[in-house]
Amino acid sequence: MSFVPTEGSDFPLANIPFGVVSTAADPAPRPASAIGAFAVDLRELAAAGLFSGPLLAAHARRVFAQPTLNEFMALGRPAWREARATLQRLLAADGDPALRDNHDLRARVLVPLADVRFHLPAAIGDYTDFYASREHATNVGTMFRGRDNALMPNWLHLPVGYHGRASSVVISGTPIRRPSGLILNPATKAPEFSASRKMDFELEVAFFVGVGNKLGDRISISEADDHIFGMVLMNDWSARDIQQFEYVPLGPFLGKNFGTTISPWIVTLDALEDARVAQPTPDFEPAEYLRDAAGSKNAFDIDLEVLLKPRGHSTPSVISRSNLKYMYWSFKQQLAHHTINGCNMGTGDLCGSGTISGPAEDSLGSMLELTHNGTRPLALPGGVARAFIEDGDEIVLRGAARVADGATGGRVRLGFGDAAGVLLPAALGSVRPVA
Amino acid sequence: MSFVPTEGSDFPLANIPFGVVSTAADPAPRPASAIGAFAVDLRELAAAGLFSGPLLAAHARRVFAQPTLNEFMALGRPAWREARATLQRLLAADGDPALRDNHDLRARVLVPLADVRFHLPAAIGDYTDFYASREHATNVGTMFRGRDNALMPNWLHLPVGYHGRASSVVISGTPIRRPSGLILNPATKAPEFSASRKMDFELEVAFFVGVGNKLGDRISISEADDHIFGMVLMNDWSARDIQQFEYVPLGPFLGKNFGTTISPWIVTLDALEDARVAQPTPDFEPAEYLRDAAGSKNAFDIDLEVLLKPRGHSTPSVISRSNLKYMYWSFKQQLAHHTINGCNMGTGDLCGSGTISGPAEDSLGSMLELTHNGTRPLALPGGVARAFIEDGDEIVLRGAARVADGATGGRVRLGFGDAAGVLLPAALGSVRPVA
Repeated sequence: MSFVPTEGSDFPLANIPFGVVSTAADPAPRPASAIGAFAVDLRELAAAGLFSGPLLAAHARRVFAQPTLNEFMALGRPAWREARATLQRLLAADGDPALRDNHDLRARVLVPLADVRFHLPAAIGDYTDFYASREHATNVGTMFRGRDNALMPNWLHLPVGYHGRASSVVISGTPIRRPSGLILNPATKAPEFSASRKMDFELEVAFFVGVGNKLGDRISISEADDHIFGMVLMNDWSARDIQQFEYVPLGPFLGKNFGTTISPWIVTLDALEDARVAQPTPDFEPAEYLRDAAGSKNAFDIDLEVLLKPRGHSTPSVISRSNLKYMYWSFKQQLAHHTINGCNMGTGDLCGSGTISGPAEDSLGSMLELTHNGTRPLALPGGVARAFIEDGDEIVLRGAARVADGATGGRVRLGFGDAAGVLLPAALGSVRPVA
Repeated sequence: MSFVPTEGSDFPLANIPFGVVSTAADPAPRPASAIGAFAVDLRELAAAGLFSGPLLAAHARRVFAQPTLNEFMALGRPAWREARATLQRLLAADGDPALRDNHDLRARVLVPLADVRFHLPAAIGDYTDFYASREHATNVGTMFRGRDNALMPNWLHLPVGYHGRASSVVISGTPIRRPSGLILNPATKAPEFSASRKMDFELEVAFFVGVGNKLGDRISISEADDHIFGMVLMNDWSARDIQQFEYVPLGPFLGKNFGTTISPWIVTLDALEDARVAQPTPDFEPAEYLRDAAGSKNAFDIDLEVLLKPRGHSTPSVISRSNLKYMYWSFKQQLAHHTINGCNMGTGDLCGSGTISGPAEDSLGSMLELTHNGTRPLALPGGVARAFIEDGDEIVLRGAARVADGATGGRVRLGFGDAAGVLLPAALGSVRPVA
């Protein structure tokens, strides 16, 4: 138990997530953790000399004075564990009194979450998105290519993935502009330039690579967990009509790269150790490089929900409830696959799960699936109906794991903070005329 | 004319390319240009105060002391022009004597190319690869999907592109490791784990973004040239068998992201002004955002060639001769398309043309096309035959434009330096067994 109240928040003592914040008084982005309703300023804690463990003592002042977590992430998992344990000791009601009993330091270190601005937690080198939910791949494949070609012949053999755009990954709270592009007119069968009419979200969880590998080397499945720093929630905003016209044969491009929202907090694998469960039984054993030791628990029981707050309304409605445990291919398998050809991963690289749809009608991770490509609009309170996302709507992703609580012997909820974004109207006027 | 002999080199006074080099005596990577058989150390020139123009005087010491060109690129096209003009004046036989007549400075600034090590010229944020050669798209489409589905319905409407992997872009001279992955066994129709048996090159030219745009903004076709810093040659190494099994529906991934070789020198658009020609006449007018002013010359007449030096042989053979002017979609169209949805480009982003195949049998830009997917091996001197690239083979790309030579009134050849790489054997042994 912490001396900071944590009841009902995403941030009990069992969590200790990592992010980057700034404040109005000090606009320099700097690493932080979170406890209850407070951000924990790691730059201040490090400056006070409170990261005194053997792995961090020589590095904490430097890595926690950076505008991103990359230098901290590059130190490796033992250092991440030491940082988490140090923070748990400093924040515990019955722990190290160095922070608890120092009024001035507490005032500098504990910043109300309502007063912080969030920044991207890492400089993202490359961003990859997988397609690891069988339900989602089947649902979307059916809509784009028909039932008989829904799941491609490769899908059960390897975690299908593709490169996304790193530059357009944004932190929660950043508005997203509705994109324009060439869209097929179903009546004329000709493409027309238009703002997207099929704006969608994708409910995903993504992992940050903490420690990478050299070009030509590999990360085996048994090593993978030590390379993964932690997870964020991710909304991979999608313009379905732009995507559908452009994506053959090289994959999604402008239908995706106008904005991807991540949650402010990265939750470490160590915090989620107790949320591990077995992943879905595969149809058949995959190739050896994708096989983990028998009995490994490589899925994570993390409840996920999507809320839509319609333009002009003050309360959001839950439109989907899913769970990360439905993912067919684990993050470990994704990382082992990504590097089996020698591809080099770097500190701060981001890998998305792909849309996480569950088996039930209300557990689907996109509007495309929930509304059957817009043909069955969702009925929301107040007489609001939504086939796709409309201008001014806000989409919020939330996630929660339930892990053992050392203090009570029961279980405590931990989360990521909201991954939220409002959709802005298209800006067609900004195309300058040809000279 | 320069006081440095340039006859027969890629680097006459009309070129003035940009790159990053180091030397054994000073291993710190730093910006450079090239003249004849010499690299021109820009850090030394800047330290001597010789970039005294209005745009660079305050910045040259800083931007030319960086390990990449990014800070220089971010200054914008007027500064790039000033740097080129300054270098032309300092390197001319009848120009500013400040370098020419200073023996000590010349010894520090002019470094024999044989003595330098090349580095990536820029920190590449995101890398996109287009698919802009109609001949290549038709040839490959025919082999992968049959003649009737060769050119997809979107291809003539927009420059199809996809996100590649930035981390695995390497500088010329870096060996490339043959990748392994899941490959379909045509007899059993089942995938098997194997080293790739269909190693290929792709002959491309890529442009570096010098100045980007904010998320949500666009770069119009009329603005595009001012955002493009210059071009490099690029070999987008491809493992065709890995690619073919994995690429549906999200595009190429492990078949590409194990290595992409670029030339050491970036040639600016200003140096290539005189190589501009009209691009191929489109089948029909594209959407307005892809239309340039009438009479614009948006293609570049750059002769390209591919050489293969077989393992154990000392002389390479030319296996393809193509030209950048065959590209259907211009770089300006590619950049306007990339940002039409508000996608943000950053300084140092790299955009490839896609494989540049010409109309003739010997102008094809990949082994896949040259050998008809390996069915008609190339016959090389010394009784060597190649269906695909073999271990120990070296692939070299060369490019040459011919531009007006102020001194003689004739035309002078300029180039990029070789984009070269040797294929190393697969490293299957490095997969660690499961614990």
